[in-house]
Amino acid sequence: MKVAIIGGTGYGSVELLRLLHNHPYVEVEMIISNSQAGTELNKIYPHVTTIIDQSLQSIDTKKWAKNVETVFLATPSGISQNIVPELMENGVKCIDLSGDFRLHSGKIYEEWYKHSAAEEKYLQLATYGLSEVYEEKIKTSSLIANPGCYPTATLLGLMPMIKNNLIDYRTIIIDAKSGISGAGRSVSLGTHFSEINENLKAYKLGSHQHIPEIEQTIEELSNQQTTITFTTHLVPMTRGIMCTIHVNLLETMSSSEIHHLYSEFYQTHPFVRVRPEGTFPATKEVLGSNFCDIGLHFDDRTGRLTIISVIDNLVKGASGQAIQNLNLQNGWDIRTGLLEIPVYP
Amino acid sequence: MKVAIIGGTGYGSVELLRLLHNHPYVEVEMIISNSQAGTELNKIYPHVTTIIDQSLQSIDTKKWAKNVETVFLATPSGISQNIVPELMENGVKCIDLSGDFRLHSGKIYEEWYKHSAAEEKYLQLATYGLSEVYEEKIKTSSLIANPGCYPTATLLGLMPMIKNNLIDYRTIIIDAKSGISGAGRSVSLGTHFSEINENLKAYKLGSHQHIPEIEQTIEELSNQQTTITFTTHLVPMTRGIMCTIHVNLLETMSSSEIHHLYSEFYQTHPFVRVRPEGTFPATKEVLGSNFCDIGLHFDDRTGRLTIISVIDNLVKGASGQAIQNLNLQNGWDIRTGLLEIPVYP
Amino acid sequence: MKVAIIGGTGYGSVELLRLLHNHPYVEVEMIISNSQAGTELNKIYPHVTTIIDQSLQSIDTKKWAKNVETVFLATPSGISQNIVPELMENGVKCIDLSGDFRLHSGKIYEEWYKHSAAEEKYLQLATYGLSEVYEEKIKTSSLIANPGCYPTATLLGLMPMIKNNLIDYRTIIIDAKSGISGAGRSVSLGTHFSEINENLKAYKLGSHQHIPEIEQTIEELSNQQTTITFTTHLVPMTRGIMCTIHVNLLETMSSSEIHHLYSEFYQTHPFVRVRPEGTFPATKEVLGSNFCDIGLHFDDRTGRLTIISVIDNLVKGASGQAIQNLNLQNGWDIRTGLLEIPVYP
Amino acid sequence: MKVAIIGGTGYGSVELLRLLHNHPYVEVEMIISNSQAGTELNKIYPHVTTIIDQSLQSIDTKKWAKNVETVFLATPSGISQNIVPELMENGVKCIDLSGDFRLHSGKIYEEWYKHSAAEEKYLQLATYGLSEVYEEKIKTSSLIANPGCYPTATLLGLMPMIKNNLIDYRTIIIDAKSGISGAGRSVSLGTHFSEINENLKAYKLGSHQHIPEIEQTIEELSNQQTTITFTTHLVPMTRGIMCTIHVNLLETMSSSEIHHLYSEFYQTHPFVRVRPEGTFPATKEVLGSNFCDIGLHFDDRTGRLTIISVIDNLVKGASGQAIQNLNLQNGWDIRTGLLEIPVYP
Repeated sequence: MKVAIIGGTGYGSVELLRLLHNHPYVEVEMIISNSQAGTELNKIYPHVTTIIDQSLQSIDTKKWAKNVETVFLATPSGISQNIVPELMENGVKCIDLSGDFRLHSGKIYEEWYKHSAAEEKYLQLATYGLSEVYEEKIKTSSLIANPGCYPTATLLGLMPMIKNNLIDYRTIIIDAKSGISGAGRSVSLGTHFSEINENLKAYKLGSHQHIPEIEQTIEELSNQQTTITFTTHLVPMTRGIMCTIHVNLLETMSSSEIHHLYSEFYQTHPFVRVRPEGTFPATKEVLGSNFCDIGLHFDDRTGRLTIISVIDNLVKGASGQAIQNLNLQNGWDIRTGLLEIPVYP
Repeated sequence: MKVAIIGGTGYGSVELLRLLHNHPYVEVEMIISNSQAGTELNKIYPHVTTIIDQSLQSIDTKKWAKNVETVFLATPSGISQNIVPELMENGVKCIDLSGDFRLHSGKIYEEWYKHSAAEEKYLQLATYGLSEVYEEKIKTSSLIANPGCYPTATLLGLMPMIKNNLIDYRTIIIDAKSGISGAGRSVSLGTHFSEINENLKAYKLGSHQHIPEIEQTIEELSNQQTTITFTTHLVPMTRGIMCTIHVNLLETMSSSEIHHLYSEFYQTHPFVRVRPEGTFPATKEVLGSNFCDIGLHFDDRTGRLTIISVIDNLVKGASGQAIQNLNLQNGWDIRTGLLEIPVYP
Repeated sequence: MKVAIIGGTGYGSVELLRLLHNHPYVEVEMIISNSQAGTELNKIYPHVTTIIDQSLQSIDTKKWAKNVETVFLATPSGISQNIVPELMENGVKCIDLSGDFRLHSGKIYEEWYKHSAAEEKYLQLATYGLSEVYEEKIKTSSLIANPGCYPTATLLGLMPMIKNNLIDYRTIIIDAKSGISGAGRSVSLGTHFSEINENLKAYKLGSHQHIPEIEQTIEELSNQQTTITFTTHLVPMTRGIMCTIHVNLLETMSSSEIHHLYSEFYQTHPFVRVRPEGTFPATKEVLGSNFCDIGLHFDDRTGRLTIISVIDNLVKGASGQAIQNLNLQNGWDIRTGLLEIPVYP
Repeated sequence: MKVAIIGGTGYGSVELLRLLHNHPYVEVEMIISNSQAGTELNKIYPHVTTIIDQSLQSIDTKKWAKNVETVFLATPSGISQNIVPELMENGVKCIDLSGDFRLHSGKIYEEWYKHSAAEEKYLQLATYGLSEVYEEKIKTSSLIANPGCYPTATLLGLMPMIKNNLIDYRTIIIDAKSGISGAGRSVSLGTHFSEINENLKAYKLGSHQHIPEIEQTIEELSNQQTTITFTTHLVPMTRGIMCTIHVNLLETMSSSEIHHLYSEFYQTHPFVRVRPEGTFPATKEVLGSNFCDIGLHFDDRTGRLTIISVIDNLVKGASGQAIQNLNLQNGWDIRTGLLEIPVYP
């Protein structure tokens, strides 16, 4: 199958290329970047020297839509909403890694993203691509809104509790920490090495655009209203997200009951690994891989469950999950091209 | 004034030496380490070459108690409880940087620290050395239990709320993150560079020994029972602690009211800097200094206050606060030797 | 083909497992570690959870030699020399990642390694496994001494010059820099996070055991005596080696002549990538991959050539090259299992 | 004494402020930045909150030249050459931290800096401010060209050899490594966290503007022509420079002779610390301080001396040395305001 990638100079795009390089059924027909069209990718990313010889191309849907079956859009928010309609009219399937099609409500999108939303029609067409949860819908959808990195870690961490309706939805507090690659490749003082190295900072308190994405999914699955506290931090490392999720249980459960529930729930999901009782995953233990690793701690003293959920933000939090969704759409084993051992140390 | 430092090979000790080097009234008469007695300190810490020529000495209280007015104990927990009694009998004032004298109850100490507590008599004698809160007691105390790094950041972050009784004590959730120097200089796999670098991990969930220390202080000041959720993480950096504190308010307050309350509260405390509304401190902004910087965010959607409190774990979280307490004990300006600008970047 | 790995708890071993996981013709029959026999590998390295379920086994050559065709020895120096003889007597091929069989002279080994050398017989049997150079010998050898990390980067950087006899052998100066994973997983103050992070240090000046390894190979290929200056540094990062090699040319060449020479020389070697004139590789651009990337700068002012050669010390500098050698021994395409795109960023 | 700082938003400027804060005789009357005039410094650098309340001012020489005795210029190259003349005409002493007045020849400046040089008159007036070497000239000079960071580490490392004429000037090879703060606070892809972290790269091979600065000083002091090889690298850390200097001796000396020579040479220079034989300084051992630490290794096998010289690029490599020069100009003890213990770990 031939695919194209739009947004060719970003980290999401090169990670797609790295992962698709291992995929037996997929060929990247073209890499598109309007701003850098004509430049060889290996001039921008020398690490692909001798492996990828393609030059970046400008977008010209008409010309190539016939050859390409699926397009990955790895563009900043606000861009793909303008490209997807034409692609879909030409019969191309779209997997969008930005936030443009994740929220069902254009109004809420505009509140949090501070710019115009995609057309209502496409918002309704889009399937939220949390692979482990919306598997069936994804299989038949031709527009996937690939989840955000934080929502992926958060929602997979909470899912067994939500599906079994075991938590007090008013008490969800997520303390989220991310490596810097989540901010992309655009330069800014906030990603300047000397400002970030040996430094830990909180940002976007109460205003992160992943808040409505998490709430929407929880509400959809639980039929209950929720308002989460979601606090994001930048950690001086390149890759990795950890969500530390605090939530009150509706009734006391033992550690082993909780652990058993999670293990059962994820038994058929190879990319979610529930860690043995009393142990907790570290971000480096999933680096470069599509795994989401989960550790669980129930505190008898407080009646609160603490869930530690880690992913590589560029893989399970973006490009890896996008390929997992591609596998679902095409009826391939979801592990195709994705079952690498994490890079450790 | 002549002082001695016990525990001379640890990070707490070299940080005391760095800070006391700027102190106009104090001379470090001796640096004590039983394990390395006879070795020159600059063989162990070459960065003090030409500045500190002293050799480490073995402990021999009788010999030197006469010359030394105050002793800093920068030893691991379980050690100072055996040294302090003899020192105090010899009329030496003690500032203990370990946890040995922080908890009033030996029983609780033993539950959390998993070894024997100090003698009851000394537990009762000791003053908890949170400088901004127990100022008056510290001035007249001859045994100071210098607070832990996490409790310092947490308690200073919560103090204006506690003193004004504005929070629901059942809802305190502290997501704490620390640089690796908090683990000291003893080698272990958990502090091995290749395991920690580019990695973020949670540890000691529900069992960190700073939990009872925080709860004891909150209860003492509020006369209310509290059971906190306290989750600790290791961040790949050397220095710095951030406590992200989530708490429900008893009644809604505006952001500016909260901010005003904090600013007023800390107006006379030069080491606590309340940041302007809408801004949040990063750990590097206090590196090498005795500041505790605080940022505040009240979320209308959830009714929860999020407090970001940062310190340098080796300064305000240990050696700096110890010197602040020495200043208090001696009636010196608390800023003496401590009013450095943080090292940035 | 079934293989075994001895030294199962080290970084070399887990990197072999990561890479062999992608190898279509190889199955890891057993992972051996005397010190941790009986423990599941995923208890020691949680990142392999659900992927590798094997327990570590104690060494018992007799029992398993029949099932295993090749053994990788990823042990510290001084160990494999005691294991290899028995393995070879049982008809097992050996690829040794330690220094035990690299030097042809036991006497020189003992001078630099400060302990006893392997039996003379095996030193003579061993083939130095620098894949790009000793290709033909490796194909028929049953004992491969896999090169050191620094020698790999250095020798590949110098090889086109050596093979064409263009340099003054008295002038070779190698300024080598390594990430910390090269020091292995054994804990020590020298690999303690707080000592290494934000720090750069030189070590083993004039006494690094890779010096005779580099000199032996240069002399063997050039028939000229050489005494190199080789200075090693530890850089605060986990993976990566850069060797900056300074050498005087026997006669002036233009930059483009040099560049052309290198490009030609390595045209048939897919793992060595000569970078375009005026550009230089960074270590991260080969991270996780078996590439050795080379940049070249000839300075008209000094008549000196500076060669920048980078590898991932755990891949091309150890486990990747070991697999490349396995491929050679078995007549497989050398790229089998190894043609991954580096992990960037 | 009242001073002003021009270039107020850069790292050189905030480091001057940090160090001058400890200086008993100096008051910073104003901080000047045309681009940010009117902004409070603590809005740009929150770490100075409550310590520095000044706003940045635009440059208006006439207005303030009367109040200010000395001006520090911490601007990028090409700026101070336009400001210094007017300042000096108003009787203000200048200490320029940029490269504008370091080279005696405007022609050479223009070759390496690729823009116009300062007026010849001022190039001749300027004194190269390598404090340990040009002490006497600095005392009476009113225009100091503060040395570059790399030249400071290199020249102090070589000085005892140069002054005693013991080296072959054709053989000097300097392998220089720097933390990222040397690149300043302007954002670029080359200082973007995700590109630099866990990465080591070489840059500006053969074209670094510090080459003529080093050569000029060596030639001036030795009366011999020299053409150095100078290779610069970026290390993933914020502060610190290490120069590893390789040079052939004219005749063999024993390690202890060399060591003795250096120790004698620097006996009266408190900021240069020659390390004991067989030990080498690491960059972190001078972090935050004005020290230059030197380690020495003579290799009998090659006849080459390797010198390891480390500084904090922002202190001894910039702002610290500038203050040392201010102390010299004013007849104060050179240690005034500068004798801090490095921040370790």
